Amino acid sequence: MPRSESSRASARVAVRRVGAQQSDEDSDLVAVEEPLEIRLGEQSLSITMRTPGDDLNLATGFLFTEGIISDMAQIDSVDHGTDENTEEANENVVVVDLADGVSIDMERLQRNFYTTSSCGVCGKSSIEALTAQAHYEVKGDTLCMQPDVLSGLPDALMRHQQTFFDTGGLHAAGLFDGGGKFLDVREDVGRHNAVDKLIGHALRQDQLPLWDMGILVSGRVSFEIMQKVRMAGCPFVAAVGAPSSMAVDMAWEFGMTLVGFLRDGRFNVYATPARVA
Amino acid sequence: MPRSESSRASARVAVRRVGAQQSDEDSDLVAVEEPLEIRLGEQSLSITMRTPGDDLNLATGFLFTEGIISDMAQIDSVDHGTDENTEEANENVVVVDLADGVSIDMERLQRNFYTTSSCGVCGKSSIEALTAQAHYEVKGDTLCMQPDVLSGLPDALMRHQQTFFDTGGLHAAGLFDGGGKFLDVREDVGRHNAVDKLIGHALRQDQLPLWDMGILVSGRVSFEIMQKVRMAGCPFVAAVGAPSSMAVDMAWEFGMTLVGFLRDGRFNVYATPARVA
Repeated sequence: MPRSESSRASARVAVRRVGAQQSDEDSDLVAVEEPLEIRLGEQSLSITMRTPGDDLNLATGFLFTEGIISDMAQIDSVDHGTDENTEEANENVVVVDLADGVSIDMERLQRNFYTTSSCGVCGKSSIEALTAQAHYEVKGDTLCMQPDVLSGLPDALMRHQQTFFDTGGLHAAGLFDGGGKFLDVREDVGRHNAVDKLIGHALRQDQLPLWDMGILVSGRVSFEIMQKVRMAGCPFVAAVGAPSSMAVDMAWEFGMTLVGFLRDGRFNVYATPARVA
Repeated sequence: MPRSESSRASARVAVRRVGAQQSDEDSDLVAVEEPLEIRLGEQSLSITMRTPGDDLNLATGFLFTEGIISDMAQIDSVDHGTDENTEEANENVVVVDLADGVSIDMERLQRNFYTTSSCGVCGKSSIEALTAQAHYEVKGDTLCMQPDVLSGLPDALMRHQQTFFDTGGLHAAGLFDGGGKFLDVREDVGRHNAVDKLIGHALRQDQLPLWDMGILVSGRVSFEIMQKVRMAGCPFVAAVGAPSSMAVDMAWEFGMTLVGFLRDGRFNVYATPARVA
């Protein structure tokens, strides 16, 4: 399984551990969080807090899942950049240069895609806007997960989550196949970033769309997770935590299977149960 | 203790519950997630996914913790708005009208405050930018929490968290005093929204700054939570989950006490331990 680009994911800090009977000075590993600026050429596109070490996948995935690019042919290069002022290399900057002839409608990016002109601000319009934007259809005709295979996924994800073990502070997203084998696992302090890293890596390896595969997330599943997974064409989301109402609505709308509370050998299927045997 | 403005916080959905031995069709309550557009007069400022029912506090808190307004005197009114197209009332729109003579530098809002001109994109510059923006200093000279009082906070928070009990899908933020009494608790699918609701309510009740008080969050604590709490002048953050490296750095920088992994009668103090007896 591929590893992250580096291992700046955790940092050691001083801590006082307090229990019922005693208090000790000690040290602890915490998940590293730092800002990352994503630039399109010379133009700053976004600044997000993330765990360093997988930035090129994160930036590529972000551009794809937000609908800014639709395939790798639109990208000429993705690399760490330099500070605008000091002109020194900065690991907290990623510069994406687009291929010749590719232009991005920056004004469209300014407008928020949660609204449509038809019905204003509501959950339904958010979902419709997303449909219009997606490059791949969702497809999973041959995927059918056995319940015991599904139940085993969280423990398998944990075995891949080194930084979580160290820090207790990272979200994870794992890509699995119909047999329950993990093809990739990515971690981040932000759960949306973990998914962007996963999808960004798949995109850079020319593995999209993620048809007949599933993505497991270590926490809860809400609009932004479903949005990103849907953009990759992936038909199956499993979550250790709870889904939101919007996640359930989106799963039905896009024909995606949504499993929640996947833990302790049990789970709930919230949408499109045909992919669970 | 004040209650939320309404109770559109959970929704019932169909679910198939799968265990080791059996599978049952049932229904389940999930946390409601819907988009909220915040407008400054006629101008759309942001669209965020949130749990409905406490929108005026959320919008007010968001404007304050993002440094867009500094006190209630700058606001003439906060109320639900209408759809731009249908002109019908829309609970997913909040319109904030500023007081006469108050103007907001919208161009400054476009620029991201994580960067400064001095050193580009890094954690240090993110913290410095925040310092420049804050309206209140952080103050907690008389606050000193007893360990057993701290240890009792998560259970007390849970007793106030009705929607979490129903859905398992909400984050909570609670405001507590030095005796461990909760003065307010707010919930949302987004942890940053729960904190904005809490601070927005305090601002609308003229209770800022939150000196000598603390805020407990039900999950992990990262940059955005610390940023919002710091803006309210609050000196103490306790979290059931893990802190990020940035949260620890910010706590030291601002003289805030940071407690993490507050559960099962134990906790870790990551910064400024003088406020723990």
